Amino acid sequence: MTRAYSAEFKVRTGGKGTYEITQGIQEIVRLSQISNGLATIFIQHTSASLIIFENADPSARTDLEAFFERLIPEETDYFAHTAEGSDDMPSHIRMTLTRTSESIPIVNGRLSLGTWQGVFVYEHRRHSHSRSIAVSIIGEVQ
Amino acid sequence: MTRAYSAEFKVRTGGKGTYEITQGIQEIVRLSQISNGLATIFIQHTSASLIIFENADPSARTDLEAFFERLIPEETDYFAHTAEGSDDMPSHIRMTLTRTSESIPIVNGRLSLGTWQGVFVYEHRRHSHSRSIAVSIIGEVQ
Amino acid sequence: MTRAYSAEFKVRTGGKGTYEITQGIQEIVRLSQISNGLATIFIQHTSASLIIFENADPSARTDLEAFFERLIPEETDYFAHTAEGSDDMPSHIRMTLTRTSESIPIVNGRLSLGTWQGVFVYEHRRHSHSRSIAVSIIGEVQ
Repeated sequence: MTRAYSAEFKVRTGGKGTYEITQGIQEIVRLSQISNGLATIFIQHTSASLIIFENADPSARTDLEAFFERLIPEETDYFAHTAEGSDDMPSHIRMTLTRTSESIPIVNGRLSLGTWQGVFVYEHRRHSHSRSIAVSIIGEVQ
Repeated sequence: MTRAYSAEFKVRTGGKGTYEITQGIQEIVRLSQISNGLATIFIQHTSASLIIFENADPSARTDLEAFFERLIPEETDYFAHTAEGSDDMPSHIRMTLTRTSESIPIVNGRLSLGTWQGVFVYEHRRHSHSRSIAVSIIGEVQ
Repeated sequence: MTRAYSAEFKVRTGGKGTYEITQGIQEIVRLSQISNGLATIFIQHTSASLIIFENADPSARTDLEAFFERLIPEETDYFAHTAEGSDDMPSHIRMTLTRTSESIPIVNGRLSLGTWQGVFVYEHRRHSHSRSIAVSIIGEVQ
């Protein structure tokens, strides 16, 4: 029998950077009782995004942040959308270059992630924010 | 009871830029009668893409376009794939850096978008095109 | 009647570049017997990714590779995450800028791809690797 299950939760971020949420998603999959199907994680914001990224060595995430700071500097002189601060327009572009949703197959009641994969909220604003995540799980209950 | 619902529609674009389709997707969700599940929007092209982006202030979309024009200029001298015009290869790269599909949870019969989120077709070619969008909705009918 | 179907397969890559897997996915859709629904393809790695890209003229993929080599050069001097080789950190960034999963509607038992769209594994490491792909298919069996 197939069913659909939905959940929402919030993540408090502490400024630019990545915040792992893999365990929280795994727990929602467990609560759904769906053993075979698909989990979709969706972030309800336009200045933060999601990534699946290596979760072993934090230096990889530091380098990723350094790359984005150089690719879309806050001091970009041609930006017109600056009313909400110099980190606002870069945050919209960073979000567009990463992902608003991630979809992960569920097999035997677990996210079928690779060994080094984690799911992260990627905060693009300088200040702390509460970020809302919606999760949709669809599949077969055993 | 779960069901799958599919629909297709076309968007006429008027050259490079973003074209909001949120209301059209919302209407398809309503027609599907699915109250809890997942909507996936898919664009059937390799020189246009989809983004979820802030839909309040159009200046954010103007700045996004300016960013992509600088990141992948039409005059890039090392491109070999130029038979279809100088805007063709940049359009394939822009498409790869954004999204071919967007997946959005459905809760209580509505897309669970955040306050400022809209779904947009992102046209990367200079001329007007008719773009085909396929929509898949899966979930529980109340 | 709706059902969920899952499959896994491996792709042997031969260094940086794109490897088409469209026919393999289409075959999995056929085996699933699902005629209307959604196929999600997920790559279980953080140094390879997926793209949907034009599959007619290989020069477009050559130019894409040239673009990424310039955007994230292996010789980037500010990278700290270098223990696994100079192609490792660029591979994590390339992966973040492209996609870990692709979702494609299924209509009448087939992926609803556009005429020129193919699904590709995008290998970002210099050496050959075996890459694991998980596929989730959900929808109605006719």
